[in-house]
Amino acid sequence: MRVGVVGATGETGSSIVNGLLEAGGFDIIALTRPASLDKPATLVLKEKGIETRSLDLKASHEHLVTALTGIDVLISAIGPMEQLAQLPLATAAKIAGVKRFIPCGFITVIPAGGIQALRDQKEVVYNHVKQLYLPYTILDVGWWYQISFPALPSGKIDYAVGIPGQRIPGDGNVPSALTDLRDIGRYVARIIVDDRTLNKMVLVYNELWTPNQIYDILERLSGEKLERQYDSLETLQARIANADAKLATNPNDFMLALQKVSSEYLISWGVRGDNAPEYAAYLGYVTSKELYPDFAYITFEAYLKEVLAGKGKGVYEGLRQQIAAALKQGHETQ
Amino acid sequence: MRVGVVGATGETGSSIVNGLLEAGGFDIIALTRPASLDKPATLVLKEKGIETRSLDLKASHEHLVTALTGIDVLISAIGPMEQLAQLPLATAAKIAGVKRFIPCGFITVIPAGGIQALRDQKEVVYNHVKQLYLPYTILDVGWWYQISFPALPSGKIDYAVGIPGQRIPGDGNVPSALTDLRDIGRYVARIIVDDRTLNKMVLVYNELWTPNQIYDILERLSGEKLERQYDSLETLQARIANADAKLATNPNDFMLALQKVSSEYLISWGVRGDNAPEYAAYLGYVTSKELYPDFAYITFEAYLKEVLAGKGKGVYEGLRQQIAAALKQGHETQ
Repeated sequence: MRVGVVGATGETGSSIVNGLLEAGGFDIIALTRPASLDKPATLVLKEKGIETRSLDLKASHEHLVTALTGIDVLISAIGPMEQLAQLPLATAAKIAGVKRFIPCGFITVIPAGGIQALRDQKEVVYNHVKQLYLPYTILDVGWWYQISFPALPSGKIDYAVGIPGQRIPGDGNVPSALTDLRDIGRYVARIIVDDRTLNKMVLVYNELWTPNQIYDILERLSGEKLERQYDSLETLQARIANADAKLATNPNDFMLALQKVSSEYLISWGVRGDNAPEYAAYLGYVTSKELYPDFAYITFEAYLKEVLAGKGKGVYEGLRQQIAAALKQGHETQ
Repeated sequence: MRVGVVGATGETGSSIVNGLLEAGGFDIIALTRPASLDKPATLVLKEKGIETRSLDLKASHEHLVTALTGIDVLISAIGPMEQLAQLPLATAAKIAGVKRFIPCGFITVIPAGGIQALRDQKEVVYNHVKQLYLPYTILDVGWWYQISFPALPSGKIDYAVGIPGQRIPGDGNVPSALTDLRDIGRYVARIIVDDRTLNKMVLVYNELWTPNQIYDILERLSGEKLERQYDSLETLQARIANADAKLATNPNDFMLALQKVSSEYLISWGVRGDNAPEYAAYLGYVTSKELYPDFAYITFEAYLKEVLAGKGKGVYEGLRQQIAAALKQGHETQ
């Protein structure tokens, strides 16, 4: 099976490539923008035995079809700002005979229609895929362990904290599905050879945790006491309204877009409780628990112990630097 | 089980009421706009033993909640121009404790996202329902027998022709799922007591027919020869573009809206082939063939014989008069 991956050097894409390599039996093709073909991250892929192929998402239909020819399963793990570039990609995938397209889901469970702007952009892509009658799997993954815990007063886990300045949405008692970023690729390796997931929405997740439970366990494991700061629904809504007002005049301001999207996320998983298996089932998802009850996932406790032992790995390094710089300039991040 | 029906005197609503009465065991409540409570059609419902209850879709949330209190299953069969009135209706249904909402689907299988404006309005309602976490069934019914056949040169079945001036979309060889309007209520009576249909999309249909097959059988049964006039995809698209251009200045022109929506329908079921069980399954529908293989539906041939014997019943009488009047003024209908 020949598996094409768009965005193979990103956080999700890396997990997917590693999961496919670990499972074995896949020919992996990293579909890489021409300017990135010689970048160190791409060369690392080559060293792992992965074919790299030039794919310019803005190029002609013919170019896209050629780049996708021979690919059985196409996985898109592109950045949040590039979602609509998947429209011509899907059209080309249909013509190229791709047997399954996994468009860029890889977020929490969120219903379409105004809860979150990023989710609604994905819906535009999903609708296009469905109009094409292109075989697909929509894959959401819950919220990563890697961005689910706060810093400690001692500063000893700052190196691994995914979202600096984290606060608790709502009352902190809403359970949300969490997944270790590294497990995502392992789930993908199972899903793309599984007929039960064809033309379905799938939620993969490891464990359910509330924010308060996360603070509790981190206090227990670290021996440190955490301050808990709560943001009410009204506070989060005001933050979105504030971002919207400013985005009207600065539509390309990345930090404003981040403020909006992250507050929408917090309302969805932290207040509404969307990111939960029961609600996912209601929306039509099948979950990894039904599909792969034997899956040996990394537990959240094991992950936190790793982080406390200094062996964790931060995510979104570039983004974190951007946020840190913006914080210094007085920006709000959530 | 207490079943509330909005639009109980319409074509679909009447079929639903009759199907529920035939099945028996349901307390039916016709939720009727205040101005229609004393109309003849409403009085006919009362004579059948159906409770009528005032429901003003434009009234306050509190009024809607009160009107829906005690209703287990709420079925909405409202007109095509009123779809968005279901938004506050669904919100009230959630608060009133409705156990299953059947929003106004009752059309052919059409994917969301720009294929048909009416379908996309329904999607807005469906998304709202899902955000409410309100138990639902989305029910589509294919294309009615009653609007699936052309007039005969002799004029003898004009009395029953659902769409005057009908032409054939595309090459006329695309199969489409057809249902007798009278069977819809019979399907509904099964669906609303069936857990397998909860939080699902369901397609009920009787038989698959292509337009050319319909012309063939009508020629055979009638002994008359039919002229076949075909509209290409380009012709249909031009008709939509023409309607769109005029709707920009006359947004409330009913005939223009009809021209647009009917051309979009023809492209969807007649050219794209959306209204077919395989595509429905791809979109996540379960079909009546899987659910109720024993269902004794009316065959299309039996229906046509009824019409030829002068025993058919026309539909949309008011609409047909409106179309006839508009045709006299030189309007295009398709």
